[in-house]
Amino acid sequence: MYTLYGFPKTRSVRVAWALEEIGLPYEYKVVNLKAGEHLNAVFQALNPATKIPVLVSDEGALCESAAIVTFLAEKHAMHEFIPASGTFERGLYEQMMIFAVTELEQPLWSKVKHDFALPKQHRIAQMQQTADWEFERALTAFSHYLDDKEYVCGSLFTMADVVSGQVLLWAKSSDLDLKFDNVKSYAERVLSRPAYEKAWRNEMAHLSSTEQAG
Amino acid sequence: MYTLYGFPKTRSVRVAWALEEIGLPYEYKVVNLKAGEHLNAVFQALNPATKIPVLVSDEGALCESAAIVTFLAEKHAMHEFIPASGTFERGLYEQMMIFAVTELEQPLWSKVKHDFALPKQHRIAQMQQTADWEFERALTAFSHYLDDKEYVCGSLFTMADVVSGQVLLWAKSSDLDLKFDNVKSYAERVLSRPAYEKAWRNEMAHLSSTEQAG
Repeated sequence: MYTLYGFPKTRSVRVAWALEEIGLPYEYKVVNLKAGEHLNAVFQALNPATKIPVLVSDEGALCESAAIVTFLAEKHAMHEFIPASGTFERGLYEQMMIFAVTELEQPLWSKVKHDFALPKQHRIAQMQQTADWEFERALTAFSHYLDDKEYVCGSLFTMADVVSGQVLLWAKSSDLDLKFDNVKSYAERVLSRPAYEKAWRNEMAHLSSTEQAG
Repeated sequence: MYTLYGFPKTRSVRVAWALEEIGLPYEYKVVNLKAGEHLNAVFQALNPATKIPVLVSDEGALCESAAIVTFLAEKHAMHEFIPASGTFERGLYEQMMIFAVTELEQPLWSKVKHDFALPKQHRIAQMQQTADWEFERALTAFSHYLDDKEYVCGSLFTMADVVSGQVLLWAKSSDLDLKFDNVKSYAERVLSRPAYEKAWRNEMAHLSSTEQAG
């Protein structure tokens, strides 16, 4: 049984989504970012980088959403949600996963950091424009990689689509245009999956009950 | 037979290093970044993101250094350089790989981008200080993750050490202090591997012959 430490509208929904796709039961614990719970000693013992999500099992704690979803697919869903180990398609999966978190996501994360997540003295207002330009450049490359494929690795829906889909949703919620027809229809296709809806509804419900309790 | 498109003192050394560790033969092609060769149509057909390294084989082109080294270990070196698929240790490998490229490396990449890699109108001088602060924060987390382990996944040297080692070298060459004793000795241990030295010497030799030819 897994315990997922998360918070709604953050990267933790990637892990919740992956768990729902595979059909694994899990306990969800809200780490209240607004109250700074990610900075306390109990949470830091789980993740010294003080970031959610963290997935805990009998074996220990795993951090980094893109790593966790790959781990879950490898452990529980061989030949579903991830191309077979050692194939070229698996190489493409790794490529698209790394691209999603280093190129497509970083400009969005920069915008958040320089808006409110960094300590005030390190925020730079001008970074919003640079990040917008970087996102558009990454999106152009993403559109080329995607081409006319159904999912980033071809016809198989994988965990790389979970991460890419969440990044594109993040972009839309930051008022950034997805610009390319193939990217727009890909985002719709991926984000309309029932497992995604179940994941974010569950996160929101847990937040409500935490707030009522607190 | 693989062809590696790279340039010395960039992320391509990670792939060269991985190929040397596994003992795979490869052809090395210099993409002259100074001459803008990464922006031409031939190279863009290999990688629409216009970044090196790219690894080409009969099956196609793979991009993103962290993805390529994982692919190589999975395909050619099962049970060496990468923990077995589906294990918790493999989850830690994925975690440390993603952490290396999204947390530890990004501040260093920010410094390069805002120094010279971005178009002039998007560079922000103040980003150097913010990036230094972000690197120190990431390094602190890395030191916690590493703890007293020999390598990031424990006693097994993996491709996550290739990437982490190269990032730490990059930090040193950017005049950033590695600050923690466990990180300093880890960097020495990893970067003293013969395969690393062979990889960078080979890249430098190819650059020299390209420059003489051109």
